[in-house]
Amino acid sequence: MRLLGLDPGLRHTGWGVIESDGHHLSHIANGVISVDVKLSLAERLAKLHQGLVQVVDRYQPMEAAVEETFVNRNPNSTLKLGQARGIALLVPAQTGIPVAEYTPNMVKKAVVGAGHAAKEQIAMMVSTLLPGVALAGTDAADALAVAICHAHHRQSAAILKAVSG
Amino acid sequence: MRLLGLDPGLRHTGWGVIESDGHHLSHIANGVISVDVKLSLAERLAKLHQGLVQVVDRYQPMEAAVEETFVNRNPNSTLKLGQARGIALLVPAQTGIPVAEYTPNMVKKAVVGAGHAAKEQIAMMVSTLLPGVALAGTDAADALAVAICHAHHRQSAAILKAVSG
Repeated sequence: MRLLGLDPGLRHTGWGVIESDGHHLSHIANGVISVDVKLSLAERLAKLHQGLVQVVDRYQPMEAAVEETFVNRNPNSTLKLGQARGIALLVPAQTGIPVAEYTPNMVKKAVVGAGHAAKEQIAMMVSTLLPGVALAGTDAADALAVAICHAHHRQSAAILKAVSG
Repeated sequence: MRLLGLDPGLRHTGWGVIESDGHHLSHIANGVISVDVKLSLAERLAKLHQGLVQVVDRYQPMEAAVEETFVNRNPNSTLKLGQARGIALLVPAQTGIPVAEYTPNMVKKAVVGAGHAAKEQIAMMVSTLLPGVALAGTDAADALAVAICHAHHRQSAAILKAVSG
């Protein structure tokens, strides 16, 4: 089962594709879509959309996951993040791929084992869980962490279903 | 010059198309795209995208405008609004239509003449400025107000440009 993880942002959007086979995870690809900040907001969103469509077309994931985050301090930054996040949710949905959402704590717990972890810890654990991965940056590492989190949760959900059903 | 105004929201997105010919404005169409709240967030954004693509395809606006609003109270609502707004900005940009942004105060000033106005006042003034219009609802009235605001501002910008050489 091929899974896509996304860490959206208006400047940089990380993406990561993994293959989940039972308990075994393997790395397929990861990268960062960076958008020229000199473009208008609408043009930036269109570029981000274009970049994500290319990733989905190329790697054909079966399911996607996006981090469910919000910025508390500045409403303006929250709105900006929301706009980028809207595009990240939209692209998989447009091709009929189900999109799961996870809180930052769930992602950190799945990867590091604790709800609070530094960016570097996440990148290190992602490298350990996906041997041989070459990370395109911290946003790509975060995106792979979201994909790993989704792999764990869909696995648990499947076991629960098998036990109860 | 055909202009599209948008008032985005995750439940209801108002849209309004006007024709701006010098100082003369006329109404072309308005409506509301309502999305089933039982769908997942990603599916809702995909439906909103689909609805907006239909409006743009049908009415072929040359320019678009979106209200630049943010919710101060609840970061979660701000994030949600941002996601819908991202789609509203994306759709015109995807077909190469320039998208302007106006603050709620600019929109109210352009339509009512004052920066603070109730929803009902906006709908009333929109009906006065666009004789014969049948409003599809308050979100559609707001969207037409955004389009009217854009017509005024691009007019002023053109005069300024002509005067300054």
